[in-house]
Amino acid sequence: MTGGPTGGPTGGLTGRLGGRLAFGGDYNPEQWDESVWKEDDLLMRWAHVNLATVGVFSWALLEPEEGRYDFGWLDAHLDRLHANGVAVDLATPTASPPPWFTLAHPDAMPVTDTGVRLTHGSRDTYCLAAPTYRQAALRIATALAERYGEHPAVAMWHVHNEYATVCWCDHAAAAFRTWLRARHGTLDAVNEAWGTAFWSQRYGSWDEILPPRATQWHRNPGLALDYRRFWSDEALAAYREQRDAIRAHTAPDRPVTTNLMLPGYQTLDLWSFGREVDVVGIDHYPCGPGLDAAADIAFGADRARSFGGGKPWLLVEQGANTVYTADRTLPKEPGDILRHSLAHIAHGSDGALFFQWRQSKAGAEVWHSAMVPHAGPDSRIFREVADTGAVVARLGEVTGSVVRAQAAVLHDSDCWWALDGQGLPSADLDYHGELRRAHRALWDAGITADFAHPADPGLSRYRLLVAPALYLLSDAAAESLRAWVQTGGTLLVQHFAGVVDPDHQARLGGYPAEPLREALGVRVEEFRPLAAGASLRLSDGSTSTTWSESLRLTAPAEAFATYTEGMLADQPALTRNRYGAGTAWYASTRLDDAAYGALVARVAAGAEVHPELPLPRGVEAVRRHAPDGTASWLFLLNHTASPVAVRTEGHDLLTARPLPAAGLTLPPGGTAILRQG
Amino acid sequence: MTGGPTGGPTGGLTGRLGGRLAFGGDYNPEQWDESVWKEDDLLMRWAHVNLATVGVFSWALLEPEEGRYDFGWLDAHLDRLHANGVAVDLATPTASPPPWFTLAHPDAMPVTDTGVRLTHGSRDTYCLAAPTYRQAALRIATALAERYGEHPAVAMWHVHNEYATVCWCDHAAAAFRTWLRARHGTLDAVNEAWGTAFWSQRYGSWDEILPPRATQWHRNPGLALDYRRFWSDEALAAYREQRDAIRAHTAPDRPVTTNLMLPGYQTLDLWSFGREVDVVGIDHYPCGPGLDAAADIAFGADRARSFGGGKPWLLVEQGANTVYTADRTLPKEPGDILRHSLAHIAHGSDGALFFQWRQSKAGAEVWHSAMVPHAGPDSRIFREVADTGAVVARLGEVTGSVVRAQAAVLHDSDCWWALDGQGLPSADLDYHGELRRAHRALWDAGITADFAHPADPGLSRYRLLVAPALYLLSDAAAESLRAWVQTGGTLLVQHFAGVVDPDHQARLGGYPAEPLREALGVRVEEFRPLAAGASLRLSDGSTSTTWSESLRLTAPAEAFATYTEGMLADQPALTRNRYGAGTAWYASTRLDDAAYGALVARVAAGAEVHPELPLPRGVEAVRRHAPDGTASWLFLLNHTASPVAVRTEGHDLLTARPLPAAGLTLPPGGTAILRQG
Amino acid sequence: MTGGPTGGPTGGLTGRLGGRLAFGGDYNPEQWDESVWKEDDLLMRWAHVNLATVGVFSWALLEPEEGRYDFGWLDAHLDRLHANGVAVDLATPTASPPPWFTLAHPDAMPVTDTGVRLTHGSRDTYCLAAPTYRQAALRIATALAERYGEHPAVAMWHVHNEYATVCWCDHAAAAFRTWLRARHGTLDAVNEAWGTAFWSQRYGSWDEILPPRATQWHRNPGLALDYRRFWSDEALAAYREQRDAIRAHTAPDRPVTTNLMLPGYQTLDLWSFGREVDVVGIDHYPCGPGLDAAADIAFGADRARSFGGGKPWLLVEQGANTVYTADRTLPKEPGDILRHSLAHIAHGSDGALFFQWRQSKAGAEVWHSAMVPHAGPDSRIFREVADTGAVVARLGEVTGSVVRAQAAVLHDSDCWWALDGQGLPSADLDYHGELRRAHRALWDAGITADFAHPADPGLSRYRLLVAPALYLLSDAAAESLRAWVQTGGTLLVQHFAGVVDPDHQARLGGYPAEPLREALGVRVEEFRPLAAGASLRLSDGSTSTTWSESLRLTAPAEAFATYTEGMLADQPALTRNRYGAGTAWYASTRLDDAAYGALVARVAAGAEVHPELPLPRGVEAVRRHAPDGTASWLFLLNHTASPVAVRTEGHDLLTARPLPAAGLTLPPGGTAILRQG
Repeated sequence: MTGGPTGGPTGGLTGRLGGRLAFGGDYNPEQWDESVWKEDDLLMRWAHVNLATVGVFSWALLEPEEGRYDFGWLDAHLDRLHANGVAVDLATPTASPPPWFTLAHPDAMPVTDTGVRLTHGSRDTYCLAAPTYRQAALRIATALAERYGEHPAVAMWHVHNEYATVCWCDHAAAAFRTWLRARHGTLDAVNEAWGTAFWSQRYGSWDEILPPRATQWHRNPGLALDYRRFWSDEALAAYREQRDAIRAHTAPDRPVTTNLMLPGYQTLDLWSFGREVDVVGIDHYPCGPGLDAAADIAFGADRARSFGGGKPWLLVEQGANTVYTADRTLPKEPGDILRHSLAHIAHGSDGALFFQWRQSKAGAEVWHSAMVPHAGPDSRIFREVADTGAVVARLGEVTGSVVRAQAAVLHDSDCWWALDGQGLPSADLDYHGELRRAHRALWDAGITADFAHPADPGLSRYRLLVAPALYLLSDAAAESLRAWVQTGGTLLVQHFAGVVDPDHQARLGGYPAEPLREALGVRVEEFRPLAAGASLRLSDGSTSTTWSESLRLTAPAEAFATYTEGMLADQPALTRNRYGAGTAWYASTRLDDAAYGALVARVAAGAEVHPELPLPRGVEAVRRHAPDGTASWLFLLNHTASPVAVRTEGHDLLTARPLPAAGLTLPPGGTAILRQG
Repeated sequence: MTGGPTGGPTGGLTGRLGGRLAFGGDYNPEQWDESVWKEDDLLMRWAHVNLATVGVFSWALLEPEEGRYDFGWLDAHLDRLHANGVAVDLATPTASPPPWFTLAHPDAMPVTDTGVRLTHGSRDTYCLAAPTYRQAALRIATALAERYGEHPAVAMWHVHNEYATVCWCDHAAAAFRTWLRARHGTLDAVNEAWGTAFWSQRYGSWDEILPPRATQWHRNPGLALDYRRFWSDEALAAYREQRDAIRAHTAPDRPVTTNLMLPGYQTLDLWSFGREVDVVGIDHYPCGPGLDAAADIAFGADRARSFGGGKPWLLVEQGANTVYTADRTLPKEPGDILRHSLAHIAHGSDGALFFQWRQSKAGAEVWHSAMVPHAGPDSRIFREVADTGAVVARLGEVTGSVVRAQAAVLHDSDCWWALDGQGLPSADLDYHGELRRAHRALWDAGITADFAHPADPGLSRYRLLVAPALYLLSDAAAESLRAWVQTGGTLLVQHFAGVVDPDHQARLGGYPAEPLREALGVRVEEFRPLAAGASLRLSDGSTSTTWSESLRLTAPAEAFATYTEGMLADQPALTRNRYGAGTAWYASTRLDDAAYGALVARVAAGAEVHPELPLPRGVEAVRRHAPDGTASWLFLLNHTASPVAVRTEGHDLLTARPLPAAGLTLPPGGTAILRQG
Repeated sequence: MTGGPTGGPTGGLTGRLGGRLAFGGDYNPEQWDESVWKEDDLLMRWAHVNLATVGVFSWALLEPEEGRYDFGWLDAHLDRLHANGVAVDLATPTASPPPWFTLAHPDAMPVTDTGVRLTHGSRDTYCLAAPTYRQAALRIATALAERYGEHPAVAMWHVHNEYATVCWCDHAAAAFRTWLRARHGTLDAVNEAWGTAFWSQRYGSWDEILPPRATQWHRNPGLALDYRRFWSDEALAAYREQRDAIRAHTAPDRPVTTNLMLPGYQTLDLWSFGREVDVVGIDHYPCGPGLDAAADIAFGADRARSFGGGKPWLLVEQGANTVYTADRTLPKEPGDILRHSLAHIAHGSDGALFFQWRQSKAGAEVWHSAMVPHAGPDSRIFREVADTGAVVARLGEVTGSVVRAQAAVLHDSDCWWALDGQGLPSADLDYHGELRRAHRALWDAGITADFAHPADPGLSRYRLLVAPALYLLSDAAAESLRAWVQTGGTLLVQHFAGVVDPDHQARLGGYPAEPLREALGVRVEEFRPLAAGASLRLSDGSTSTTWSESLRLTAPAEAFATYTEGMLADQPALTRNRYGAGTAWYASTRLDDAAYGALVARVAAGAEVHPELPLPRGVEAVRRHAPDGTASWLFLLNHTASPVAVRTEGHDLLTARPLPAAGLTLPPGGTAILRQG
């Protein structure tokens, strides 16, 4: 549980912030003139801003032509911010190459799988595998590190921005072949892994291997999966290159990180990134209003914490007034800015940053909300931002404290990528949706949950694991899960699990992979997907959709609900197996939300995993613990529209008083942070 | 109010038609053989055809190989038509380059934004910015003008056909840069206008500027908007080039024009085209059946009239039996051919033409209806066409008369293009839909309406202006609207108005742009888009969707309806401000159709803008005025399925008798044209 | 009724199988190791497998680099299979060129209509018109024929796999021009056929003609239609090339064929293929569950039989547990494997094969079901497969027997392709949907139906013809249908029929094409498509959608139902004409399913076309006849969930006993095969 090279919980950041939580956001002063900068200084103080992310989109100004740098303007802003008490999260601008880059290096522009070469005019338009791009990115990052590595304003380094662009060009093809040699060793091993004996796909030379470009019919799923892995690793290598260059020029208490996109992006293996960043930083914009936003924040925050191994992490971007839905941006409700910020902090963030400080007056994000909206500081949004800053400023003592969970949801990028493929038996196999639903069921039950990788060697820290979409499973992970159940764990596995190995090769002789099958006491013989919109009724009265399976049980596994219709009538649908000291549950069909929630609650209760406090649904109680065990802080967040009485005790950080004996009543939307023994 | 170089109301056309309204259509005799031509002559006389558009698709026959012309066949057709009493609207064939053109000039084929170069095999496949295309087009147009400039059959010139093809190729890029230099002067000014400081988009040389081609993420909205402007100007330049070449060889009483596509196409700024054509000509196919078709005709016709500054204009194409819907072509009902033709004439067209005379027996438009259908003259369609021709032939006295309106709907291509962009707060911001809805509300209320550009210096001719989607607004137009209200105008502005300037830069300090804000007495602080499908109830019982806003009012502005829910409860939703001698209304949410119609009617009544006659919805009364004020003609069009009694007087042009004192009764679908004092 | 070069009903196949029906499937042993091969031998015997399709995807192993062959592994498998009593359907592997092929011949990769050149990584990625592809394909096919032409295991040759890839590249363009010269003779004739006088499309040289690549607007329908014809002919030429090479090296009692895709693929003219294969082979996967699957099997099987001129044919691929729907694969119900196999045999298949023997453990079809599923032989699926094999093994005596039908549905690829174009009056004109619906109406009525081409010279073998979507009709076919009605046939023609000729040129003077118009006693003057979702009520109480027409009747044609609304009120909707000794019915609107079914049943009854037995809907009785008339076999298939008593007699092949006098009762899902006199 150490944070980066210097060992502080957030890699030294909170030390540089004087033990305070971070509060602030992206700051792009190059969009504005001096009169605005002066107002910015004033308003930042007013709003208790202590950290600004600078330089994310500054490449074109920092290097106006190839090899010629202009740092003067940035010097001035860093000095000004520093003088104003605002530390800087200094970004390398490599996500947005300037227009000159395209003309100088057209081969470094990304190419789609249908062969369209993109061009500049937006952002994020580059091929990570193009040598000229990588060299140019490393040069500007190094130049920044050399110049600002010891600048007193700089408290943190922000490499790149939201790695997400994927490319299918010839540079990518070459890099993919190199990666494949490293992963598989020989071409024979590649052929074996991908099953190229089928469909006449056997590769006779490395040069024949291409990215998964447009082809006539389904692609080879092994190749497609390896390409996802390769690309994530390529992005990670690009990150590490810059990180190492920065580390060579900066003090070790200035953590280096990048801002990861959550929650629905699936380009990167975030477990790998979590191991390479000094602090996990995420961008997180709720994708629904109301209670859905609160659950979404917990979902993203719990993932961020888990990717970093449980350490405090940092919310690098949120929207002041931004709730994304499919085709529009909804506004936040009064109080959301504070409560959403505190919700992130409750789940382990050592601060709350926004994108961006001041709403752009031009450009593609002119309608993206900001801490200071177009209307200016005389606005509800800025007032709530400033109020939030004031509250966050009172919470410095929680920095570095950690959240502990007894339950975890299994989460594996390989599964996600493999299920995002072609030729699957049903269009309703939605990795991300199932992941969310499992977490939401625990959240609805008031249970704080981590995410864990199926091959995590430290599963013993959990009492309960939920595996909502465990499509792909390695032999080692199957054995690890089995052993964990045997020694007392409670595992809930859901349909279509453990059916392929890491090469996307099917498990034979019945699913899921042994020895998980042994722990579950279940052998799946046949999948029976349901028609779109069709549903089934089970013997316990619950209903389900999407999927069913023909199972055979091994004693002492028992069905606690059976199918009632068709070929599967009276056959087991939901099963439970006492295995060693533990219990393994299996759901062979996709229960409707209510039944699924009830099942998860029942499994959790069986595992003796309970909420911090018994509270109504939508009222969160999340605890952060001092690493040395001397104190803990209970965050109470009422996301509902009703007041709720909470019987507890402690020192209220917001009122700076002890709670009365009767506890407290959280008003609708209200929050409290209590220091407890 | 003069029409082209010779000053006649329709540029001399009706003079050449002997003072008659134009009746006829596109005539493509090259599809047929001599026996058909003979039948054509007979049937055209029978149907009172006096104008035929010839040559639109004839390039491949007129110039069968590059530089070799064959005019003989066209000579014969022009002579034949002339002998038969049919004047010719002679088209330049430049919308359809022949196949040889592609092989000779592959670089002149258009390229999509994803880099797909299109090829021939259809029509409209060319890049307007390609020099070789422009030269070839000018050559054939000049050759036609030289040969037929003084041909007695030629009464009008029809440049090109439906300018609509857009291109993203390198020729387009070069022309775009030239255009940008002219608009912005310096590269610094371009960078400033587009806000390229954001997202690292600063351009260091002109060569770096590209059309808005495929890129990774949202495009710069300033660039995207300028590209729309550029392309419209490029099309206009192409038009002017041909027009000037023709004018050099033809008598000044032969107007030159092009056929503009209406109503949903948004490639061109039709205000600019209106200034450069001798007569506004439009193609207009109703996009719905029944009353929707009638309202759509009024919508298109009122726009056509407005683009030409109020002069008579010409319906160049309509469909005999064609009502377009999303995925099929519906037939017209009996009587529609006549009533639709008269509806266009009522709104100011000096004629009614069709595409096309005879239904093609082959090719891509084999199922496009025509005046003479596949079934031949023994058909309902041809009989109705011929009956319509006979009626139109009786209306010669209305030629040159004009329609006058007291109300106008504000309409600006810049707004349309800007709202057709990426990154907007809601997918439901539909410029064209709102434009239609505003016009429809006036039409339903029986009010004849113009369209007006927000920066029109002559707004004083109106008592009422409705601004349904005034997203983009220049400083000058904001001031012009303010001043117009101050001197007595009544203005209705709808949500999300005046929020960006002509560079697509946001207005700061609250919306909309000053000094319109002053006239409205409203400062918008925050937008609050609604979820898809969500609706709000206002204090007056009306409902609304899509959008809401947080407003602050300046006295004497008052709320006449407030929000009732959420953060905005009891806050103003609909406001009215007495300002100087005028009134400015603001609707900060999108009212449902019924409430919106009621609001528009209320605002109109407040402005003392009334219908010609109080008639049921769907029964039109539109008046054309002799320019010298000596007479007017009242067109009565019953688009409903019920008879309607009309108490009025005058000379009935169809019966050639004075109306009886009791007035007349229009049967369902019936029409009357009355000459009045 | 001879089958290929040797005259046996299935081209000698069943002779080589010892007079047994074929049972087995695709066998791809290169995916597995020796231990699996040993199990395969055992399980194939257990399941009564006697035919395995080998080599479909083996190119990369057979020719690991260009020109170097490795046949040793295939020798071993063929010897092993032969030793195990399994005959081989030996495939040429040309549908899946190996990766080396792409690198050696990039110009032979297919190009989409938007210019995207596809690459390997899937299957079916090649341009049939590329000379290097054709040469490579012919080389490997010849090498296989030379080596295995006399191999005792080989009972049949399987050229390629599912010809379906279409290409728009320059090779395709060159081949298209050659094809056009052959079809049209001169460029003038091409111009005339395509009506290039419209839209300035006249071609001045052959080089100007291109495939229907991306263009700005609708394509020329004549060109589009000719390209479909060309491509089908190109595929047929590719097939014939390989077939002829094989025939040069194999005994004439080993039939050569290819597996055609059914039922919704429309790339090929299957009538042409039917004339060139020794045995029609089809791949057929039901596209719906339950009764829809049964009707779909009949639909596909009746088409397969018809394409081969009524001869026995062969089901080359079915899915053991595969029911395709739009976005998922549904499982089969218990008993379906047997009943579906027997349903194909009932309709004339001399066997039932599956794709594939053993479910792949890797690759793009890892979730495609197989005879031996992942779970292994201890599974419902394999047990049912083996049971089915045992039943099929008892039916050897039906080999070579044929199905005879008194009714046929007219079916023409030209119609299909022409209706799959741009610019049609309604999006609801669905050739394939109407074809299915016509067949289903007959199937629901218990009537065994063929399909017949409109220009089939042998229509006199039918009493009833249904023409559900006869959009395109040649003069000759129109005359042939007229004459057939005159001599006693009963014809039902549906809306929008006979309206274009084979060049896609419209029929003038009223539709449909003469002299069909004479036989129907109907002249269609005007089409009146309906709005999406709209419906009409007819005078007989039935309802209809999609389409209506304005008709004029010629005595003695009479309306037996009229329209009731709008312009067509009281005008004829459904008509009947006594013509010569026959009757011609016309439906000018698209009746709802129930009314359409009733109409078809009424027309069939009028034609004295009756089911084999009066049975409930969903219970099939289909008869196969010994060619010499000495016996027949009645297949009874209860596709419903209710038992049904059948009063009939005969020798029951499954029980090997005569039926009792009371007949038999088929349980739900039950089947019986009775030999009758």
